[in-house]
Amino acid sequence: MDLQRYLEDVTARDWQASDPGEDGPVRLAMVGLGWWVREKSIPAVAQSDFCETRVLVSRDTADARALAHEIDAAVGISGEEYHDGVATDEYDAVYVCTPNATHLPYVETAADLGKDVLCEKPMEASVDRAERMVDAVGGSASRLMVAYRMHTEPAVRRVVDLLDDGLLGDPVAVHGHMSQPLLSMIPDPDQWRLDPDMAGPGASVTDIGLYPLNTARFVLDSDPVAVQASMDADGEAFAAVPDERAAFTLDFGDGVYATCTASQAAAQSSHLEVIGTEGTARVDPAFFPDQARRLSVTRAKTTVDTTFDQVDQMEEEFDYFADCLLADRDFSADGDHALVDMRAIEAIYEAGETGERVEL
Amino acid sequence: MDLQRYLEDVTARDWQASDPGEDGPVRLAMVGLGWWVREKSIPAVAQSDFCETRVLVSRDTADARALAHEIDAAVGISGEEYHDGVATDEYDAVYVCTPNATHLPYVETAADLGKDVLCEKPMEASVDRAERMVDAVGGSASRLMVAYRMHTEPAVRRVVDLLDDGLLGDPVAVHGHMSQPLLSMIPDPDQWRLDPDMAGPGASVTDIGLYPLNTARFVLDSDPVAVQASMDADGEAFAAVPDERAAFTLDFGDGVYATCTASQAAAQSSHLEVIGTEGTARVDPAFFPDQARRLSVTRAKTTVDTTFDQVDQMEEEFDYFADCLLADRDFSADGDHALVDMRAIEAIYEAGETGERVEL
Repeated sequence: MDLQRYLEDVTARDWQASDPGEDGPVRLAMVGLGWWVREKSIPAVAQSDFCETRVLVSRDTADARALAHEIDAAVGISGEEYHDGVATDEYDAVYVCTPNATHLPYVETAADLGKDVLCEKPMEASVDRAERMVDAVGGSASRLMVAYRMHTEPAVRRVVDLLDDGLLGDPVAVHGHMSQPLLSMIPDPDQWRLDPDMAGPGASVTDIGLYPLNTARFVLDSDPVAVQASMDADGEAFAAVPDERAAFTLDFGDGVYATCTASQAAAQSSHLEVIGTEGTARVDPAFFPDQARRLSVTRAKTTVDTTFDQVDQMEEEFDYFADCLLADRDFSADGDHALVDMRAIEAIYEAGETGERVEL
Repeated sequence: MDLQRYLEDVTARDWQASDPGEDGPVRLAMVGLGWWVREKSIPAVAQSDFCETRVLVSRDTADARALAHEIDAAVGISGEEYHDGVATDEYDAVYVCTPNATHLPYVETAADLGKDVLCEKPMEASVDRAERMVDAVGGSASRLMVAYRMHTEPAVRRVVDLLDDGLLGDPVAVHGHMSQPLLSMIPDPDQWRLDPDMAGPGASVTDIGLYPLNTARFVLDSDPVAVQASMDADGEAFAAVPDERAAFTLDFGDGVYATCTASQAAAQSSHLEVIGTEGTARVDPAFFPDQARRLSVTRAKTTVDTTFDQVDQMEEEFDYFADCLLADRDFSADGDHALVDMRAIEAIYEAGETGERVEL
């Protein structure tokens, strides 16, 4: 095994199955016009051959119209107009990027309108609402994907390959971490990510802890059977949530444990490491956009470090979404997949409160 | 802050306080002549200016005598002869490196004889026996150090400095891992490390999980207040122990969590990472001897990688032990320090069995 050649022999878009020039593009309505959509999603789609932004939806109709004009989209409309089916001829699919607790009605409407949906993660603020979302889509002609960007991150996909090809042996343990200084990035203690009514049960596990959670599931191709957790919140801005900081362990059965930490009040840092019976693989940095990933693979006494040119995570995600629609393929992260995370997240908060292992 | 200069400006033996040429050497009796003593401890002391090996103690008297002759020590004696006070004029201090469950009587005898002791870790196989050890030494003129090699590992000491000097901000989370393929290294399913009567409550946490456990305590200068754990044993050789693999979280209070994994049935791998509010520091590899340590420190967008020439961990440890004796200074890892690990280890096994958080 020439490990270096193996790692260099990467086809970044090993998932592509469609010919977007022939079948595309997928025309999108974007719902929610916060900084992520403006700075990440719209520019990503502007570069894409697979999709184009045709409709913008916002509570602020004037803002939606102005931005639609600016980016040469067909139309900007209000949320009410969206729910009323305005401009449905202009788009094929919907991207929902609003605060977590407001995803459900937009997805329900998309299902009613027969539009496919790419919904930001976490898919909603509670398991109950997430289940209603899956039910709404399940009873319709629409399809739902949840926006887990790591599924199209080349370095992470290479870890999947390493495990699939047996190069790490059997997985034994996963370490995952994600932290950022939220209040330095968005200096507003009243932001929605710190408001349980909008964000869900907490601040750190819900918003960023789900990166190591979901990516551990993705690379192991397995779902947790139980969780343990500890969490603490001390800072004034975190008074309404239990988890300024959290540590949680996912039990994947067969003695495979993923042990993770997350904090919205720490230096920006992220990593994912898999330790197997035959070797280890570490992605660091792992989760934040706009960083070149480094993958370190160790087998026996040899370590090979590979730096991956950073892809535009949102472009990869939109293109993957569109590619699955155009080629009529299943999404890696559909509603049922994302529901497992929602149940794990609620279990993590329960475990953090009780100190007890919670079965899933 | 010039991070690179800070990291390069290392005095490896920042702990040295004595003049061994003037005051030394400390003359040692080594108890237990397994492969670690033969391959690591005796060669380390042979290089040392601080101590010398004078007496060898073994159940196999002939073996002790032959080895004493070979290395030019004063005498080889049996365990009985040791307990009877034979050759006490030949040594000042005792190094105990026998299976965990047999440390206590050797340390008790050392205390009776007024000899100082360096005892391998874990200090014993149970909290009860460890407490008896501390009591025995406490009621004597002897002093006890437990052999935590990370306390004299330059890369680890630099992490302590980084935290002390505030360069990582406040600690938020620690990740630690240690694993090795025990049965490939020592292909004997009947070895004492897999026998709870000799090793203590388990195989992975007791023998190697205590590296991330103790090193997290050392760098944080803090003791855990509670633990959570998950563990599993599936392999035939691990039938008598609960932890072929384990994941455990140490709660240090104030929302500082160390999340750790350990396995005696995985690829050799070890790391320790501290994530703070202002930066991160990672030692990888961290714990095994004979590997050059790499310390990666990240603050803001700058990462500085420093490779530390590998010291002889056992030479550092023996010299530190002797230096503290010669300079009449306290040990970093005395009996009370090591007792905290013993209590944490027992709590980890209880937590692994019950699935519940165990307070310390």
